[in-house]
Amino acid sequence: MTFPFSPRRERLRELVSRRQLDALLVLSEHNVYWLTGFTGDSTWLLLTPDSATLLSDSRFETQISEECAGIDAYIRPQSSSLIDAVAEIARQQNVTRIGFEGHIATVEIYDRLSKSLSGCQLSGISQLVESQRCIKDEAEIEEIRLAIQQAEQAMLNWQNGSLSSELTEREAAADLEQILRSEGAQGFSFPGIIAVGDRAALPHYRPGNVALGSSPILLTDWGARTAAGYISDLTRTWLTGEPDGKFETVYKTVLEAQLAAIDLIRPGVRCSEVDAAARSIIQRAGFGEFFGHGLGHGIGLEVHEQPGLRTSSETEIRKGMVVTVEPGIYLPGWGGVRIEDDILVTDDGCEVLSSLPKDWESIRIA
Amino acid sequence: MTFPFSPRRERLRELVSRRQLDALLVLSEHNVYWLTGFTGDSTWLLLTPDSATLLSDSRFETQISEECAGIDAYIRPQSSSLIDAVAEIARQQNVTRIGFEGHIATVEIYDRLSKSLSGCQLSGISQLVESQRCIKDEAEIEEIRLAIQQAEQAMLNWQNGSLSSELTEREAAADLEQILRSEGAQGFSFPGIIAVGDRAALPHYRPGNVALGSSPILLTDWGARTAAGYISDLTRTWLTGEPDGKFETVYKTVLEAQLAAIDLIRPGVRCSEVDAAARSIIQRAGFGEFFGHGLGHGIGLEVHEQPGLRTSSETEIRKGMVVTVEPGIYLPGWGGVRIEDDILVTDDGCEVLSSLPKDWESIRIA
Repeated sequence: MTFPFSPRRERLRELVSRRQLDALLVLSEHNVYWLTGFTGDSTWLLLTPDSATLLSDSRFETQISEECAGIDAYIRPQSSSLIDAVAEIARQQNVTRIGFEGHIATVEIYDRLSKSLSGCQLSGISQLVESQRCIKDEAEIEEIRLAIQQAEQAMLNWQNGSLSSELTEREAAADLEQILRSEGAQGFSFPGIIAVGDRAALPHYRPGNVALGSSPILLTDWGARTAAGYISDLTRTWLTGEPDGKFETVYKTVLEAQLAAIDLIRPGVRCSEVDAAARSIIQRAGFGEFFGHGLGHGIGLEVHEQPGLRTSSETEIRKGMVVTVEPGIYLPGWGGVRIEDDILVTDDGCEVLSSLPKDWESIRIA
Repeated sequence: MTFPFSPRRERLRELVSRRQLDALLVLSEHNVYWLTGFTGDSTWLLLTPDSATLLSDSRFETQISEECAGIDAYIRPQSSSLIDAVAEIARQQNVTRIGFEGHIATVEIYDRLSKSLSGCQLSGISQLVESQRCIKDEAEIEEIRLAIQQAEQAMLNWQNGSLSSELTEREAAADLEQILRSEGAQGFSFPGIIAVGDRAALPHYRPGNVALGSSPILLTDWGARTAAGYISDLTRTWLTGEPDGKFETVYKTVLEAQLAAIDLIRPGVRCSEVDAAARSIIQRAGFGEFFGHGLGHGIGLEVHEQPGLRTSSETEIRKGMVVTVEPGIYLPGWGGVRIEDDILVTDDGCEVLSSLPKDWESIRIA
C-alpha cells in the first residue's frame, strides 16, 4: 500500500499559504508520518512552499533515507537541539512567518522556539493537519478495513481457541494480542480491555486478575494496529452464562441507541445530532446518567481522531470520515454494556465496516 | 507494594510554596499516578496547600474511589471541559497564583486556561515533579528490580525456548513479549527492538521481516513493565554465527566504554563526565562519529526520565537515581553493537542491577 505523501504535502502548503505563513513546523509524530512516511520519533518536519525538511538526529539518518525518498533531512549534531535545527533551517530557507502546531507544542518548547527564532513571527495553529487527516483516502480506508479484519478474525479465533473460564482478564488479553499478531497486526491499537462482571462498568478499565468465569458478563474493547499503523476499535459485550433480568433491558437499550445513531450518519449531519440520537434513547430508558462519555470518535493512525461525536460538537459529518459509534450503560457495582462499530461515511449515508454479530441472539459465547 | 503517595504530595507542596504559588496543576499522566496512584487517563491533579483534587469525568469515578482513597475527585459534567474543571476548583479553593506543568501543557491548553482563569496568575513550571521522581524510593527500586528480573528471565527463556533462525524479527519480538507476560510483566516497556545484521545499525529500529538466521549479529533492546508500571531497559548484542573480523573490535570497544562509564558513576559526578568517559574510548578507537546518541537516561515509570547522561548535561549524579548506560557503535550497511545495563546510584558508587552476561565469551547463543 502506498500513501499519497506528496499530494498531502501539496494540499497542506495551500492551507499554510492561505494563512499568510511562509512555513509550518509539524511536531506531531503522527502528522510527520502522514506527511512523509517516516516511522521514527524525535523528528519534526519544516514545510515551506518549496521544501520539506525532516529535522532529526543521526539515530534516524539511515531510516529517513530508506523511508522518505526525496525528502530533505537535516541531521543535527549531538551538541545541538531540535530547536536549534528549526532556527538553522528557517535561516537557510529564509522563512520568517512560521506556523507551529499549538495543540502539540508544549509551553516550554514554544518559549525556547521564541528565543531561538527571535526575528520570526510564530503563530500557534491547532489541528491543521488533523483537519486533513479526518477525511480518509482510498489507501487509508483499505488499511482500516484490514485493521478491522485482523481484529474480528482474532476475536473469533480467541473465542474458539484458548478461551476458558479459568483465565484471568489479563491472561485472556495477552492471548488475544498474540492472536492479533498471528493475524498480521503489530498488536493491539490500544491496551485491550477485557472486563468481567462489575469491572465492565469501568469504561477505561485495565484487565486484572478477575477470572472470566466469575460473572456471565464479558466486555471486550479491542482493536488491531496494522503494519502501516492504521487501527480498528471495536467493542462487544458477550454472555458466558445466565445474566440477571436487568441485563437484557440494558443490552437492548444500548443496541437500539447504537443502531439509531448509525442510521443517522450521512454527510451534512452534525456530530451532536448523531450523539443525541443515541443519548435520547438511553435517557428515555432511564439510564441517561449512566452513559457518561461521548458517542464516538474518528479513527485512523490514532485511536482518537477528529471528529468527536459529542454533545458539544457542531462539526458536520463529511464523506470519507471513519468514526466509532459506541454507546454504553455503566451501572456501578453491577456491570456495563457497550457496543462499538467502525463506520465509514459514504456519499449519501454510511457503511458499517465491522461485522461481528451483536444482536441479542448472537452474544452467547460459552 | 505500597508507594508513599501522601509524603510525595507533602514534599511537592513545599516546593510549590517556595515558589510563592498557591497551587500546582499537574497534567502529566505519569506525575498524576506518582502522586495519587490513579492509573487512568484524561485526569489532572490540582494540588493546593490543603487539598489534592483529581479533575476527571464519570468514566473514572469508580476507579478513582478504588485507587485513590482519601483524595478528592471533581467529576466534571459531560458538557464541560477539564479547563472548566480547573476554573471551578480554583474558585472553590480560592487559589489565584497557579503553577502548571509547562513541559506538558500545550500552547493551546495554556491559551484556554488563561481565558478561563482570567483573574489568576499562571506560571509555567517545568520538571518539578520529575525533579522528585528522579530519586527513587525503596518501593520504586524494588519495582525496577522486578522489571529487570522479568526482562532477564524472559530473555533466557526466549533463547532456550522458541528461538530459531527461521523466525522473523517481528515474530521473535512477539514471542519475547509473550514470555515477558508469562513472567508477570504487563508487557514490553517500549516496543522491543530485535534487529539482525545491518538493521542493528538503526538505534530505534522496529522489528521487520528479516529472518534471525540471515546474519550472525542479533541486537536485542527490550524491557519489561511491571503491573505497578515500573520499567527496565536492557540491550545485548548476541552472536548467532561467525561474525567478520571487525565485529570483535567493535564489540570490545563498546564494552570497554560501557564499563568505564559505569566505573565512574557515584554521587557528585556530572552526567556529562559519565558520557565523556564512554565517548572518549569510542573516539580513540576511531568510531566517534558512529556513536550518535547520548550515553543513557533515567528510568522509572517512563523509559526516558531524568537525568540524561549526555554531553551537554551538567546535572550531578545523586544517590537513588537509576540510569541506563548504553553506548553503541553503528556502522551503516554493516551493523551495530549496543550494550545497556540499568544502574542504581548508591551512597558511594553504584550497583549494576542487571546481570545478563556481556563479556566477549558469553554472547554466542546459537
